[in-house]
Amino acid sequence: MNTFTENMECRREAPIGVFDSGIGGLTVAREIMRNLPSEKIVYFGDTARLPYGNKSKETIIRFSRQITRFLIRQDVKAIVIACNTASAFALETIKKEINIPVIGVIDAGAAVAASVTKNHRVGVIGTVGTISSGIHAEHLHRLDPEIEVIGKACPLFVPLAEEGWLDDPVTEAVAHRYLDSLKEKDIDTLILGCTHYPLLRNLIGRVMGSHVRLVNPAYETALELKQLLEDRNMLCSSADTEEFPYRFFVSDLAEEFKKFANSILPYNVEMTRKVDLELLFSTGQSTWC
Amino acid sequence: MNTFTENMECRREAPIGVFDSGIGGLTVAREIMRNLPSEKIVYFGDTARLPYGNKSKETIIRFSRQITRFLIRQDVKAIVIACNTASAFALETIKKEINIPVIGVIDAGAAVAASVTKNHRVGVIGTVGTISSGIHAEHLHRLDPEIEVIGKACPLFVPLAEEGWLDDPVTEAVAHRYLDSLKEKDIDTLILGCTHYPLLRNLIGRVMGSHVRLVNPAYETALELKQLLEDRNMLCSSADTEEFPYRFFVSDLAEEFKKFANSILPYNVEMTRKVDLELLFSTGQSTWC
Repeated sequence: MNTFTENMECRREAPIGVFDSGIGGLTVAREIMRNLPSEKIVYFGDTARLPYGNKSKETIIRFSRQITRFLIRQDVKAIVIACNTASAFALETIKKEINIPVIGVIDAGAAVAASVTKNHRVGVIGTVGTISSGIHAEHLHRLDPEIEVIGKACPLFVPLAEEGWLDDPVTEAVAHRYLDSLKEKDIDTLILGCTHYPLLRNLIGRVMGSHVRLVNPAYETALELKQLLEDRNMLCSSADTEEFPYRFFVSDLAEEFKKFANSILPYNVEMTRKVDLELLFSTGQSTWC
Repeated sequence: MNTFTENMECRREAPIGVFDSGIGGLTVAREIMRNLPSEKIVYFGDTARLPYGNKSKETIIRFSRQITRFLIRQDVKAIVIACNTASAFALETIKKEINIPVIGVIDAGAAVAASVTKNHRVGVIGTVGTISSGIHAEHLHRLDPEIEVIGKACPLFVPLAEEGWLDDPVTEAVAHRYLDSLKEKDIDTLILGCTHYPLLRNLIGRVMGSHVRLVNPAYETALELKQLLEDRNMLCSSADTEEFPYRFFVSDLAEEFKKFANSILPYNVEMTRKVDLELLFSTGQSTWC
């Protein structure tokens, strides 16, 4: 085996880096676990600075650069930006700055929505930041300039999902308040443009009606990642069953994160490490909890 | 006039520093404006890192130290921590580290609640961080060990207030969900333990019933500040009518902040300056918007 092949082999066994402003990106990690069960994952949740949805582009790029730098130190072979706001604001910048593949949750969702809509009327729901960025419309128009995109910010959906009120009359009333105006626009496809929203999928589906196809970018991103790794011959060749393949890092409240992770992932998340990104690059400190 | 008296004079004319994780502390600034109309104010909202309610004590102390350092550079004569989480976690630390008076929103609210309760049963509502810190109970028990304190975290109240759904059936349904269990505890006094909550005061009052006295720490803090400045002979001696006496700084999205500030303050907030605390102390940069 020559050095080049050895390096390729080594890269194939390297983990996927996944990051989000907090816990929402776990819905993306979960789909990667389901659809790419041999891959290792290093997850970073920026819980000290969440949410990203109400922060500026400049700030989000700065946060995303710090996290990317951290993930590259963990020797990841590819990065998934599992946060809609960070994908909208920082993906293009990060792509230019590093030499491993980077994908975001916007592209995959847009591609599927463009392919399934029949009446060319696509709705997008997300945080204020994602919706006002118009990033979904930009991607959809690149794929099909005929598509009309109707965006609606739903800022209460994240705190409702985090309260665990997933199938609840209050959440249903809020959903009607946000979505009734979208229903009037006669859309046939709706992109769940925030990583928390798959947790509310059943309720959103009920409010929208069965004629509206819901697009879950978490699932579509896992499929896009699989295709990308296959195309580049970078799929992990063997699952190492000795070692727990998933590592979780957060910037604050590791215990709280662990609780939520355990509520949505199909196994026990034993260890979550807290890192301070602002301090890390000067002292290298981190603590397990 | 000797140098000592000149210095005192100079300090009297100095502004009050007020800080919060974001916009909620404006309810405290508003009460200071109403009750101390001659005082100047420098307000800092840490909008890049809000909310504080779901972050750890260690993180909140670090953020509060950075902001305090910034306010001292603005030559403030006293600091009001207009954020319940930061008051709960960082007030004692900051007090020890600087030599100008510092007050928080917890003490004033607790003092009034202890003096008005007749049945010694006091409720407190706030963010997860404030309620789980038990800080109100600690203060109330120092004043009167007989008082039973019943806390309830209401994480959806802040996003509801920020949506502007102040007198709304959805907010009322959420309020019942959170507050009905408190009503059953037979409290006669309720501390609004989060700076956003005064915006929901009418609705909370209606849900709790007229026999429950609501304590608004924003108002009580303004009165405590007035007393403190009087006691130390530090009240501003003259209002400078030439110059706009209030300056607003934020760590992100100055425009959004200005909109909200204009919706709750009784005049036009023309200028809000954005500062990056992490960069500030190395480069000193800031931009007006």
